[in-house]
Order: sequence, then C-alpha cells, then structure tokens
Amino acid sequence: MEINLVSDTVTKPTPEMLEYMFKAEVGDDVYKQDPSINALQRMVANVFGMEDALFFPSGTMANQTAIKLHTQPGDQLIADKYAHVFNFEGGGVSFNSGVSCKLLEGDRGMITAAQVESAINNPEFYHSPKTSLVCVENTTNMGGGACYDLNELKKIRQVCDNHNLKFHLDGARLWNALVAKRENPKEYGQTFHTISVCLSKGLGAPVGSLLVSDAATIERALRIRKILGGGMRQAGYLAAGGIYALQHHVGRLAEDHRRAKELAQILAQLPFIRKVEPVETNILIFEIDSRIGEQAFIEKLKQKNIHISGLGQGKLRIVTHLDYREVMHSYVVEALQKLTF
Amino acid sequence: MEINLVSDTVTKPTPEMLEYMFKAEVGDDVYKQDPSINALQRMVANVFGMEDALFFPSGTMANQTAIKLHTQPGDQLIADKYAHVFNFEGGGVSFNSGVSCKLLEGDRGMITAAQVESAINNPEFYHSPKTSLVCVENTTNMGGGACYDLNELKKIRQVCDNHNLKFHLDGARLWNALVAKRENPKEYGQTFHTISVCLSKGLGAPVGSLLVSDAATIERALRIRKILGGGMRQAGYLAAGGIYALQHHVGRLAEDHRRAKELAQILAQLPFIRKVEPVETNILIFEIDSRIGEQAFIEKLKQKNIHISGLGQGKLRIVTHLDYREVMHSYVVEALQKLTF
Amino acid sequence: MEINLVSDTVTKPTPEMLEYMFKAEVGDDVYKQDPSINALQRMVANVFGMEDALFFPSGTMANQTAIKLHTQPGDQLIADKYAHVFNFEGGGVSFNSGVSCKLLEGDRGMITAAQVESAINNPEFYHSPKTSLVCVENTTNMGGGACYDLNELKKIRQVCDNHNLKFHLDGARLWNALVAKRENPKEYGQTFHTISVCLSKGLGAPVGSLLVSDAATIERALRIRKILGGGMRQAGYLAAGGIYALQHHVGRLAEDHRRAKELAQILAQLPFIRKVEPVETNILIFEIDSRIGEQAFIEKLKQKNIHISGLGQGKLRIVTHLDYREVMHSYVVEALQKLTF
Amino acid sequence: MEINLVSDTVTKPTPEMLEYMFKAEVGDDVYKQDPSINALQRMVANVFGMEDALFFPSGTMANQTAIKLHTQPGDQLIADKYAHVFNFEGGGVSFNSGVSCKLLEGDRGMITAAQVESAINNPEFYHSPKTSLVCVENTTNMGGGACYDLNELKKIRQVCDNHNLKFHLDGARLWNALVAKRENPKEYGQTFHTISVCLSKGLGAPVGSLLVSDAATIERALRIRKILGGGMRQAGYLAAGGIYALQHHVGRLAEDHRRAKELAQILAQLPFIRKVEPVETNILIFEIDSRIGEQAFIEKLKQKNIHISGLGQGKLRIVTHLDYREVMHSYVVEALQKLTF
Repeated sequence: MEINLVSDTVTKPTPEMLEYMFKAEVGDDVYKQDPSINALQRMVANVFGMEDALFFPSGTMANQTAIKLHTQPGDQLIADKYAHVFNFEGGGVSFNSGVSCKLLEGDRGMITAAQVESAINNPEFYHSPKTSLVCVENTTNMGGGACYDLNELKKIRQVCDNHNLKFHLDGARLWNALVAKRENPKEYGQTFHTISVCLSKGLGAPVGSLLVSDAATIERALRIRKILGGGMRQAGYLAAGGIYALQHHVGRLAEDHRRAKELAQILAQLPFIRKVEPVETNILIFEIDSRIGEQAFIEKLKQKNIHISGLGQGKLRIVTHLDYREVMHSYVVEALQKLTF
Repeated sequence: MEINLVSDTVTKPTPEMLEYMFKAEVGDDVYKQDPSINALQRMVANVFGMEDALFFPSGTMANQTAIKLHTQPGDQLIADKYAHVFNFEGGGVSFNSGVSCKLLEGDRGMITAAQVESAINNPEFYHSPKTSLVCVENTTNMGGGACYDLNELKKIRQVCDNHNLKFHLDGARLWNALVAKRENPKEYGQTFHTISVCLSKGLGAPVGSLLVSDAATIERALRIRKILGGGMRQAGYLAAGGIYALQHHVGRLAEDHRRAKELAQILAQLPFIRKVEPVETNILIFEIDSRIGEQAFIEKLKQKNIHISGLGQGKLRIVTHLDYREVMHSYVVEALQKLTF
Repeated sequence: MEINLVSDTVTKPTPEMLEYMFKAEVGDDVYKQDPSINALQRMVANVFGMEDALFFPSGTMANQTAIKLHTQPGDQLIADKYAHVFNFEGGGVSFNSGVSCKLLEGDRGMITAAQVESAINNPEFYHSPKTSLVCVENTTNMGGGACYDLNELKKIRQVCDNHNLKFHLDGARLWNALVAKRENPKEYGQTFHTISVCLSKGLGAPVGSLLVSDAATIERALRIRKILGGGMRQAGYLAAGGIYALQHHVGRLAEDHRRAKELAQILAQLPFIRKVEPVETNILIFEIDSRIGEQAFIEKLKQKNIHISGLGQGKLRIVTHLDYREVMHSYVVEALQKLTF
Repeated sequence: MEINLVSDTVTKPTPEMLEYMFKAEVGDDVYKQDPSINALQRMVANVFGMEDALFFPSGTMANQTAIKLHTQPGDQLIADKYAHVFNFEGGGVSFNSGVSCKLLEGDRGMITAAQVESAINNPEFYHSPKTSLVCVENTTNMGGGACYDLNELKKIRQVCDNHNLKFHLDGARLWNALVAKRENPKEYGQTFHTISVCLSKGLGAPVGSLLVSDAATIERALRIRKILGGGMRQAGYLAAGGIYALQHHVGRLAEDHRRAKELAQILAQLPFIRKVEPVETNILIFEIDSRIGEQAFIEKLKQKNIHISGLGQGKLRIVTHLDYREVMHSYVVEALQKLTF
C-alpha cells in the first residue's frame, strides 16, 4: 500500500465515477455540441449564480485566460507573493498576457484590501505599469490551505471598483474553502469578475477546470481558449467526471480536512517538528528541526511507503485527498507517532 | 439517421475503443506518471522513428507549440495561403509567438521548394522580418485533402537546411496521406524537425494530438505546453483512445478515401455541379452552379438528413470518416443521384 | 558631385533649417516641458483638424503604436501586400501587437473598399483571427508613389464603420499626396482614426514622425511610446526641424514630382527599359530589359556618380527629394539620355 | 532664477555643446551612414573595452533591447525591487519580452551574489519560469545614487556563469559611479554581457543612450531597435552632443557629488528632517518629519523657486546636475539653513 500525500492532484476516479464517465453522451465541443460539457458548464455557472462557464483542460489555462481577459499587455496585476499564477504557471502571465506582477507580503498567502489599495500604481503616471487586476487564491496552496475571510474579499472588491480594477479568484481549491467555512458560493459569484475552479484536485475528477463569469466575458474566453489550444473535441467524458464529482465529492472534503488536522496535532507533539502551521483545510505545512533536515524526514517516511513533499528551507507539505482513505490514515497516524530520529 | 459529412472531427468512439479507454491505467501526467500517456508517446515517436513525442489537448496547441519552438518574436514563417495555422488557429501564430506569416499561392494548399526559396527574406536586411520556419500541411484541409509528393517535401527540407530554417509538418490528417500514398512514416520523421499528428480526426479518438521530434525539442515543448495550459492530470483515458485508434483505425482510412472518390464521381455527373476537385483522401471539394448557390444545395441535403458545409464563393466540402458507414454511404449515393434543382 | 536617388530619407537639413533648429527652445519632453515639441504637435494636429498629435523618433514607431492602439493580440489587420508595416518594420506588427496581416492584391499598393469588405473575417467564427484594423499607405512606397483617390478612402472608412474596424493611414509620404492632388488635409483628419506623418522624407527634416488622432487616443499613445522606448528628453531641436520644414518645404514637393516625371519620360524612350510605372509623386519605378539586368544598370549609373536602388526581379527605383537640385537633375537627364548598353 | 533639483534629466546643452552639435556631420543612420553616430558608438565601445555599441533614443529602449536579447518569452529576470526596468519602463519587460521579474529586497537598490543565487529557479522544474538574466542598476536611482562594490558585481557575474544566466547593467548613471569610485570602465566591460549608458542625465546631452556589448549581440540589437521603432535618420546632431559630453562633462560630475553631500550635511542638522540617506553621488534622499509632511516641504521650497520631488511615504529626493551651478548652490544652502516650520 503506497500512500501518496504529495498532492490532491494524484487521485484516480472511483469505479462509480468511471462508470458515469463512460456512459456520458458526447459530441464535438468545438461546435458546442457536447451535451456533457454543456451540462457541466451550466451546472457550475448555477452554483456560483453567474451567467456562464467554460470548460478548460487545466486550471493554468483557466487562470491564464482570465488574466488575458482582464488586462492589456504592459499592465500589472496584484497578487500575494505565493500566487500560483506567478510561481507555477511557467511565467504565463508575462508570456500569454505581457503582464507583470506586483507581489505583496501576505499572511499565509492572503492579502488585505489595505495592501491592495497601497499597491495600485497611479494611472496617470505613465512610466509605471497600469494596474488593472487583482488575483487571489482561495484556499491558498503555498499558504497551507488557508481560507480567506469573505468580508475581506468583499473589501478588496470595493477597492477594485473604486480603482476600475478587475478581480479574479484562482479557486483551484475553492471547494475546500466553501466546505470548511460553510459559505454560499453565490456570494463568491457576486464578489469576483471571474472564478476558476478545478475538478481534479479535491473533487477527484481526472482532468479539467472551469472559468465562471458573465456571458459576454465567457464568449471572449472562448476565443482565448481557442488561441491557447484548449478547444477539445469529444471531451464530454472528462466533463462527466466533473459532474459526478460535484454531485458526490463536495461534502466529503470535510473528511480530508479532519484528517489533515489530526495529522497536524500529532506532528505538533513530535520533538523534532519545529512548527506546524494552522490547518484549515486539506493542506498541512510544517517545519522540521534543521538538525534532521527535510530530505531525511521525507526518506524516513518513504521507507514506510508514505510520500510527502518538501518545499525547501526546512518546510514540508502534506495534502489529504479522496484516495487517502481511513485505513491509510490510521496507518499514517501510527507511523508518525512512532517516528524517531 | 443523421449523416454528418461536415468534418471528420465529429466521430464518437466505437464501443471497443470506449471499453479500452475505460480500462486504461492512468496517473498524474503533470508528474509524468500516466502510463497510458507515456505508452502513446513512445508508440507515436516510434512510428516516425523520432526520439520523443508529447501529448496535447488539441492539434492547435501542438502546432502552436512547434511554431514557438522554432521561432523568435518578430520572425516570419512561410506557408500556403490555405494554412490552418494562419487561418484557423485564432491568430495564435502572432499571439503566442509574435510571428508573421508569408503566405504563398500554392496548388491545392501545397507549396514547392522553389516557391519557398523565393519567399525567404534576406537575413541581413534587418528591416524585413527574419524568415525562420516553413510549415506545410499534409493532407491539406482547405486544399481538399491533397497529398504532397514526398520528394517535394524533401526538396523543401533541403532549402530549409541551406537557409538555416526549421520545417514543421501540420499532420492533422497525415494518417490519411500515409495510407493513400502507402508511404513510410519514418521518411517523414527524417524530413521534418517537428510533426504534429491528430487522434481525433480520421482515427476517431475523442481528444488529442501529439507533437513528435527529437528529445531535446520535446523537453522544451513540455515547458511551452505548461505555459499554454495544456498540462492535464489523469488524461490517460484519452491517450488510451489514441492507442486503440492507432492499432485498429489506420488501415481502414482507405474506406473513407474510396467513399469520397465514389461521391466525387457521382457529383461530377450532376448537371448543376460546375467542378469537382481531385479527391485523394477523405475530403471532397466541389463547386455548385451559381444559379443554384451553396446555401440551397446545403438545405436540400439537410432535408434528407445529410449535413455538409459550405466554404464560401460557391464551394462546398464533404468529409468522410469512421462514423460514415457503408449503409449511410449507399443512402447518400442514391440521394445525390436523384438530386434535382 | 554624388547624386543619391536611393531614397528621400537621405536629405540633410538646409543651413536655414539648421539655424532654426539650434535656436529652438527645449525642455524635458518626458515631463511634457519641451516647448518646441509641444508647438510641433499642436501645429500638425491643426493641419489635419484633429485634436492632438505625438512626436516619435521614427515613422515605424508611430505606425507600430497606432496598430497597438487599435488592436488586441490575436487580431488581424488588412493591408496591401506591399504595406510598409508588414514588409519593412521588422515584423513589428506581430512582435509589438501580436497581430497578423491579411494582405490584399492591390493596384500599385492601393486597395479598394470592395477588397476590404471581402477580407473581413466573420467575427463570430472564433477559429479565425478577429479583423480589427485596416491600414493604408498614401502615397504608396513600393507601389511607386501612387496616390489614393480620396473617395475610395472614404468608402473604406464606411466599410470600417459598418464592421467596427479602425482605419489607420501610414502617411510617411502623405505630404507628397496632398501636394500632388491638391487635397485638404482636414479631409484626411475626418477619414482616419489615426494618421502617421514623417518629417524626414520629402520634408527634409533630420528625424521624426508624428501620430495624429483624437485626444484620448494620443493619451494612450503616450503610454505605448514610453513602453517602446520612444520618450526622449530635449528633443525639441529635432521638432524645430519639423516646424521649419512644414513652414518652408511642403509646397516645393511639386518640384520633386516634376523631376520624377521628367526622368520617367526619358526612361520611357530608352530601348532597354521594358516598362515605366506611372509617376504621380516623387517615386519612379521601372523595369529593365532582362538581358541587361538590374545590377548592370545600377553599376553603370554609379560610374556617373548617380545612385539608385534595385527592388529585385528586374525592377529599379528612383526617388527625388530636397537635396536633388536642378543642377543635378540636368546632369541626370543628360546622363540617362546618353545611356547605352 | 528657477532651481530645478527634480532630476538630472532636465539639463539643457551648454552653448559650447550646442555649437559642437550644430557643426556635426550627419548621414542616414538607417543605412549606417551617419559619421557622428558611428564615431560615438566606437568611442563608447572603446571606453568599456567592448566590441561595439548602438545608439538609442532613450535609456528605456536600450534596457528593453538588452532584456529582449538575453531572454525568451516566459523567462524570468532577477533585479532589486527598486529596479528602473520593473518600475519605470511602463511594464516593458513583460510587454516587449514576455518576461517576469523576481524582485529582491536589496540594500539601497543593490543586491548581492548570495541573494541572486537563492533566487534562481530550478531550470528542470518546468512549472516555474526559467531564470535567464540578472539586471543591476549602478548607481541606483531609487536607492539614492548608491554605488555597487565592483567585487560584488564580479561575484554576481560568477553566479551568472555558473547558472548560464546573462548579466545586464542599467548604467543610466554609471558615469557617476565611475567618477565617485574612481573605477576603470573596462572592468565593467569585462563583468557584464551588456551595459546601457545614458547621455542625457549627468552628462547633460539632450537625448540618447547607448547599449554596449560584443559585436554579435549588437548586430542582433540593431534588429530589435528597428522593431521597437528606434531607428532614426540624421540623428548625428544628438550623437555629437554625446561626444562633446563625454569629452568635457565626465570629470565635472565630482562637483555634483560634492554639492549633494553638502546639502545632505545641512539637511542632517535640521530638526524636522528625520533621516538623511548616505550620499555617494548626485542623488540625495531624505525623510521629513511626518508632522510636517512631504507636500508642505516641497511647497515651502517652491516659494523660494527651488523645485524638488517627493517619493511618497515621507521621502523626498534632490538631484544635482550640470545646470545646478555654484551660485544656485550657495542660494539653496542658505535657503535650507534658514528653513523653519
């Protein structure tokens, strides 16, 4: 039994999801004739109370498309220094949109309305890039799955409105935040101009993300998706996996959160763990005593068939997910408790 | 019974393909751990005798990535005026690569080595864009499925080598050319720096294309695919459809070609058809008498549940494919023979 | 006495212009405090009856800025196949704006409203680039200094308005057209969204071009000019050269035109000249008998200290200008008349 | 008598410089036939012991061209958070080159080799942008004219070599550093792949910058300059201003430095000045007591015809230069000493 806690992207479809996927009705989505994709898009738009949604092969493409939609080449976007769009999308913000990033020193990946306000360039001072977009991530990935306070997000939207900026949510793990905070997704739909959500992380579908927005923006997004090469043919099988996941795998995210918290409690008691960051969802970041070191810790767990990843500078990350089941959890709990160096 | 002759992209997986897909082993391809994708990539690289291949969500992305790999912003590529990369990829050549197109007046979408030679800008004259790439399409789409003479392609490669240019093949329908001309794909592997091939046209798989090249180029392609947002997770289900198609659906393309030729012969005898272009593969382009007009012809067939598409200026296009079976063909043959205006 | 008929860009300031330049009041134009630049900008805006103008270090930058202002990356512009923006701006249309060019087969570099209409892509068909701009050149450079019929330009503007396109004039040699056709520049101001004009061709100033438009567009142009690096400090010396030229060198362009026509008449009578294109302004294009060849003709004239340039494929070009004075003209007339091969 | 201490870019040519400019020989630099530009380029290349140099209309364009030469779209460059290329070039790094900036927390705008080393992304981890360039500014502008230790620059070059990165110097005020530290410019030529230097700041020429490098790089730069629209015609008048400045205005920068230091000493004694940053060259940054505030201080000086600028958050900046003469200095010294709030 190999236990992979490296990321929640490694899950494979359950037998029920797989059966649902391969019974899906499909068509040529390039002609907008794939019924499963059309159904998923309507479904996700409805969840957020927004007008329309578009299916993408990846969360990176959904985010990159949103950034392109909201900016002109030369513009600047504001984000936290941990932002996925800056750090882990291959430099796409500049490659695809010609846009630079003003990075802020947030709290576990979360920035405040006041920070945003102070980071906006004076639009009349034409020597500096024009600020046109604010991007936040919820939950934060490198911030350890932290969840924004919805009120702070609303305040940021107010700042955006005051300065004529757009507001995009990278919601790769938004389902986790919604479950953890028992929030209404329609409030998110009212707070953001665009939201990307992912089907292949906590939800456990094999492939796919969606961008949600108003109808006119989604129509423009279709053109950008075409240019980036994201138009697929009979991709309804993938969309069906997403439909199944939305129907069956959202509520159960609470289990992933509980398990992550339980692991955090155990780690907090271990003498060679220097610090455990607060756990709100399914990501757990902690620091190992420098005398032991990241790599030794990873290796020790690997010998027990438990796989986790290092973030550099003594930090390690555990991510719980659909394929990390109770029996595995019991095993990991025990393994951690017995760990010695 | 609806008969769709609009494009060979509308096919749906056969039950056997679907079962094969359903049983596929998958993994997280972002970590290169999807065994089905890895197998497909090796398989296609071997077909062309090239070192490596990379799976893409679309042929557009495979072509766009190739163009990016071979050019610098400001450069110019040479292609036929019908080229898919110029006409039907959303302007991606300029958007993604900052590259312009020098379009040539080819013969049914096919250009010659002599034309290429005369279209290369003098690299020392820095006022004009630097020519760095030649792209050809085989078979040609808007050229009516015409197939290049392999010797001419080799001559173009020679011109490229003389002028330090790269040579890319948009092989969206290369399988058709290989079958029609009984050619050895390894000769293509030796003639081009990169080749894109599609699984979802003649081969009938639901989604996916591959880019084939040497190992170093494919490694660079991985980074571009990431930036464009083409990195998918457990996409092995789609790759499995491709493996099945390569094993079972290549040889049968000859049937599509035969049916297209038969339709051409019938059309050629109809009094209101002005011209039928030569048919070499599965695409058939013909011109209708201007007194009748494209739209009337399309409508007439539509009433018989036969769907074809217009290309403008009196031209119409029929595309045969996997889902256009013999029983449908008999029906269409009869319907065309009885057609009157 | 060396006689340079290669281009009208080779002129040097007259002593009077030079004196005017170096008495100019200057300031830091980056802070908009250069009185000479400010005066020139107002002057040129007034000539065309437009709201504002902006000084640029080159016509290429003025054109490139206009294209950027009117397009989004991925868009397409329509132009004649000889267009300077496509052929001689280093590929900048794609580099700076991510835009592709739909080139039309015009008459001596001039396109018609009907051609434009038929070249516009259907904006709903998102696979093709979105058409957003039409660019014309007046006079045409590679078209041999041909002048548009103003009525045709107005018709093109009508097509642009019907399809929500912008209309830019590359007026590198617009002063020649205005003089040759005795047209009112304000009619041009009403016909185009942006006009670029050059000070360093027929007008004989050393450096500089302007972009003319409405005030809001010019404000946006300022930002683009900054990004491209066209913001200069005390460039008022150059602007003063332009002011002087506008005051003293416009009317005299008629002399350049007369001389070019006289040379054309002589060439037309030479037995080894196959064809002389019509001459409307200061550019004269002609074809040499293939038995003699371009290079031999150029060399022969060079021995007489007369320098002209070849355009390839047997075509040659002569350009008259401010520094090509009557005494030189008499000499060249005689030299041509006596030419033998 | 208005005294402008806002920037050293506001200087106007001296009568001697103007006369020299006026007598310059010029030609069409687009054909590389301007003798004054050619002479200036050779002169500056020789100063740094590098192979070649290219004249630009602005420092922004020289920097932007260098960044383009050293990077691919999607790449990342490393710079101090105050870097001019990130903050004051209109977002050009992303617009022109598609590149993102990794900003470091330097000391008065200066970064260390150790910081650079730790900011380089792992080139094999293709999710993050590829690091390809390090840019430093010497002297630093927003760092208050601070000068790098040449040994630290050599160490950064070593890091660059180890990681296959390029190293560019934004030398807008490099002449100040060379004079202040009595350094040999040839050592800079050996340390950097490209250096941009400015003629219109401390040197007092009206317009122009140069990029200095090896011959092959400068040849590529010519193409980029063309694309950006920086190719000018008879710009030798401007180049002549640069030649004069290099011959007569370098040594005298020491006077600017002395005056800036003297002003710093006076400010340091004023009770309402909270902090005066160290002064090494001609830039002086200081902080005003928050009870008074930036704007009030600026206004008070303005009433005495002394103009300085605010940097926000209580910081103010004074820049000394060629047009700030001794008589003005005495006046300012006295004015500051008598200042009360």
